[in-house]
Amino acid sequence: MAYRPLDETTIVDYISQRPTMSEVFSDYNHLSVSEVGDGNLNLVFIVRNDAQPEESVVLKQALPYLRVAGDSWPLTRERMRYETLALRKYNELAPGLAPRVFDFDDEMSLVIMEHLRDHEIMRRGLVARKAYPHFVDHISTFLVNSLFFTSDLYLTGPEKKLLQAQFVNEQLRKLQEDFVYTHPYMESPENRWNPLVDDAVQAVRSHPQLKMAIAEMKQAYMTHGEALIHADLHTGSIMVNVADTRVIDPEFAFFGPMAYDIGAVLQNLVLNYLSHYGHTADRAERERYQAYLLELVTGIWNEFARKFDETWVANNRGELAPSAYWEFPGGAQAFTEFRKRYLQRLLQETAGHGGVKFLRRMMGIVTVWDFSSIGDPQTRAVAERLAIRIGARWVLERQSIASIDDLVGIVREETAGGAVAGASGVVV
Amino acid sequence: MAYRPLDETTIVDYISQRPTMSEVFSDYNHLSVSEVGDGNLNLVFIVRNDAQPEESVVLKQALPYLRVAGDSWPLTRERMRYETLALRKYNELAPGLAPRVFDFDDEMSLVIMEHLRDHEIMRRGLVARKAYPHFVDHISTFLVNSLFFTSDLYLTGPEKKLLQAQFVNEQLRKLQEDFVYTHPYMESPENRWNPLVDDAVQAVRSHPQLKMAIAEMKQAYMTHGEALIHADLHTGSIMVNVADTRVIDPEFAFFGPMAYDIGAVLQNLVLNYLSHYGHTADRAERERYQAYLLELVTGIWNEFARKFDETWVANNRGELAPSAYWEFPGGAQAFTEFRKRYLQRLLQETAGHGGVKFLRRMMGIVTVWDFSSIGDPQTRAVAERLAIRIGARWVLERQSIASIDDLVGIVREETAGGAVAGASGVVV
Repeated sequence: MAYRPLDETTIVDYISQRPTMSEVFSDYNHLSVSEVGDGNLNLVFIVRNDAQPEESVVLKQALPYLRVAGDSWPLTRERMRYETLALRKYNELAPGLAPRVFDFDDEMSLVIMEHLRDHEIMRRGLVARKAYPHFVDHISTFLVNSLFFTSDLYLTGPEKKLLQAQFVNEQLRKLQEDFVYTHPYMESPENRWNPLVDDAVQAVRSHPQLKMAIAEMKQAYMTHGEALIHADLHTGSIMVNVADTRVIDPEFAFFGPMAYDIGAVLQNLVLNYLSHYGHTADRAERERYQAYLLELVTGIWNEFARKFDETWVANNRGELAPSAYWEFPGGAQAFTEFRKRYLQRLLQETAGHGGVKFLRRMMGIVTVWDFSSIGDPQTRAVAERLAIRIGARWVLERQSIASIDDLVGIVREETAGGAVAGASGVVV
Repeated sequence: MAYRPLDETTIVDYISQRPTMSEVFSDYNHLSVSEVGDGNLNLVFIVRNDAQPEESVVLKQALPYLRVAGDSWPLTRERMRYETLALRKYNELAPGLAPRVFDFDDEMSLVIMEHLRDHEIMRRGLVARKAYPHFVDHISTFLVNSLFFTSDLYLTGPEKKLLQAQFVNEQLRKLQEDFVYTHPYMESPENRWNPLVDDAVQAVRSHPQLKMAIAEMKQAYMTHGEALIHADLHTGSIMVNVADTRVIDPEFAFFGPMAYDIGAVLQNLVLNYLSHYGHTADRAERERYQAYLLELVTGIWNEFARKFDETWVANNRGELAPSAYWEFPGGAQAFTEFRKRYLQRLLQETAGHGGVKFLRRMMGIVTVWDFSSIGDPQTRAVAERLAIRIGARWVLERQSIASIDDLVGIVREETAGGAVAGASGVVV
C-alpha cells in the first residue's frame, strides 16, 4: 500500500486489514481512535475497542517532515524502521522494559505496538514529585542490557558490524548532531532562550574552552560506534508507573557512544531537580524530593556500573579482550583493572555528553516540559542559570570526574544554599 | 558469469570478453599472463601484450579463503568490492597516488587495474637503502586527502554515514582485530616468533599495563569510525620509484581511526630502520640510512600535520565544527587551538596503533620481509628485541607524546650506541 498519512477516519479500516490485529482485537466494530502525538516527528494514535477496554494499541506513523518545524523540513520516513528495529532489539535484550511490537508496515512507515494504558511520561510524574521505587533497577538493567549486548564486549566483530550496518539512520543522527552539539551555541534561527538568561547564553557561546570541549564531545558522538544507543533517552522517552518502566521512541537509535544514553537519563533527572525551584514552593518538600532525585542519579550509575561489570565477567563472549587474552600471571587483576578503566571512561563521557545536553535544552530548538511548564520567567531563569552552570561544569571538568559523587557534587555545589546563591553568576 | 578462479590458461579469454579492455589492448592475440601474487588472500596476474610492451594490466581476483592458511579459512570474496571502492575513492581524492581502476567484476570478485611497470614494493627498496625524494610529499598528501575528505571535517553528517555504510567489511576487519590486537599477545596456534626473543615475547604477553593499553587501542580500532582508512598501509602496500608513489591493496578499508594509517606508515619505516642492523654491516652506511629513515618519519608527520591543518581551514565544509560555530570574540584562536588538539590526539593515537603494530609483527601470524630476510637468527633477534621495546614504549607512553620528536626520540633512545646496547634488555 502506497504511503499516505492515516487519520481518525481511515485508521479503523487500516487496522482491520492487518492480520496481526486479530490477535489483539476480538472485533473491529467498536474501535475508537484518538490522536495523542505530542512529539515532533510523528502521528501517534491510540486505537481502543470500546466494547473490550483491555483491547487497545498504539499506532505510530512517521510524517515525511519534521513536525515541529512544519512541512518545510523534509525528513525521510525510514526512521520508523529504525524505531521498530530498536524496539524489537529491546524486547529481545531487555524484555518488559519497552513496549511490545505487534506489527510494522515499512511502506506506510508505521508501527503498531503495545498501548501502555497505566503508565505516564516520566517527566510528568517527576514534576508531580512521584517516587518510582523500581526505576533505578529497571533503567540500569535497560542500559546494561541494551548497551553491553550490542557492543564488542558481547558480539563478535562481524556480528556487531552487521547489526551496526542496519542502523545507518543518517537523517536523525544529523538532527542530534546539529541540535545538541552545534546550533544552540551559535547564531541559528531556531534557537530559543529565556531573555532573562541571555548573558549566560552569550557566555556559553563565546567561551573558548567550552566550545572546544563541546566540539570534542561532538567528535565522539559522530564517530564512536560502541553500541546500539537510544540516542534520545530523556525522561520524555520513558513511561513509568510505580511498578513498571518502559523505554519508548528509539527512532534516533544508532551505534554511538554508550555514555550518551547514560548521560541523557542522569542529566534529565538533574534538570527535573532544578525545575522544582519553580514547581515546589515549600522548601522542605522541595529539598526532600531533590535529595530523592540525586539518590536516583547516584543509584542509577552505581547499579549500572555493578551490573555492567557483572554482566561482562559472566558474558565475555566478544572479541575486544577475550578470556584467553588475560591468561597470564596477574591477568585476572589486569582484566578487573581494564573493566574498571572502561567504566571510568564511560562515567567521564557521561559527564561530557550529559553536560552538553543541559546546555542544549536551555538555548536550542527545544526545551523540556519540566522547565517550560514553569510559568514565571524570573523563576524559570533561576533554574535555567543553574542548568547552564552545571552543564558547563560537567563538560569542562569531565576528565577529572572519578566517581558519581564528583558528578553529583557539582550539582550540590551549584545549588548549595538554595537556588538564589547558585543562580547569581554567569557560566564558569 | 558465475565465480571461478582464473588461471593462466583462462585469463586471456576472460580479458578479451571485457568491453573495457579494448581501451587498454590494441589486440588480444599476443597476450601473455604471469601469476605474481605474494599476498595472502588473492590471485594476482600481470597480463601483457607482448607485441605492444606498454599495454599491460594487473588482474587481481579474490580467493574464497585466506590463502596463507590454505583453504581451511573461509573468507568471503566481497573484499574485492571493498578494494575497488577504496581504489576508486583514492583516484578521486588523491589522483596519481593509487593505481587506476579499469574494470571490476563483482560476480567474479576481480578488479583489473593499472600495471605499475616501473615501481617496486617500497619494503624492497628500503632494504636496498634507496632514497625516495618525493615520498614525504606524496604519502602525506595521500594521508591527508584520503582521511580528511572522508571524515566529518569535510563530509556532511549524512554524506559520511552513507559512505561509511558502503564499507561494512566485517570479515577483513576481524582479521586485523584478531591478528593485530589480540592473538599475538596470547596463546594462539598461528603465532610465530624467533625463539631467541622468547623472553621478550613472554614479557609482552604477561605485562599487565601493556595488555590493558593494547586492549584500549583495540577498543578504539573497533569503534572509532573517523574516516575511510586503508587499514593495511605498510610499506608492502606502497609501490614506489624515484618519482612516483602508489598506494595499493586497500581491501581492508573501512571507517576507522585515522591514526591507524599514519601509524602503519611511520612504524614500518622504523621497522626498516631496525632491519638494517641485519642488512647493512657497514656502520657509517647504516647510520646514514637510518638517519634518512627518521627524517622520513619526522617529515611525514610534520607535512601531514601542516597539510591537514591547511586543508581543514580551506575546506571546513563538514559539520563537526562549522565556521559559524567559531564566530565569537576569540573564536578564531579557539578554532586554531581545537585543530591543534585534534592533531595532537592523532599523534598520540598514531603512537598507540603504530606501537601495537611493532609488536604484532614480532610475535603474530605474519612478520615483515625487512626482518624475515635477515638470515641469521641472532642478528634478527637484535632487531626484533628493539622493535618490541620501541613498540611497547610507543603504546605505553602514547599519552605523553607531545611532538613527533618525542616519538622519534624513543627510537633514538632505544638504539643509542648501536644495536647491542639497546637490545640487551627485556621489554620495559
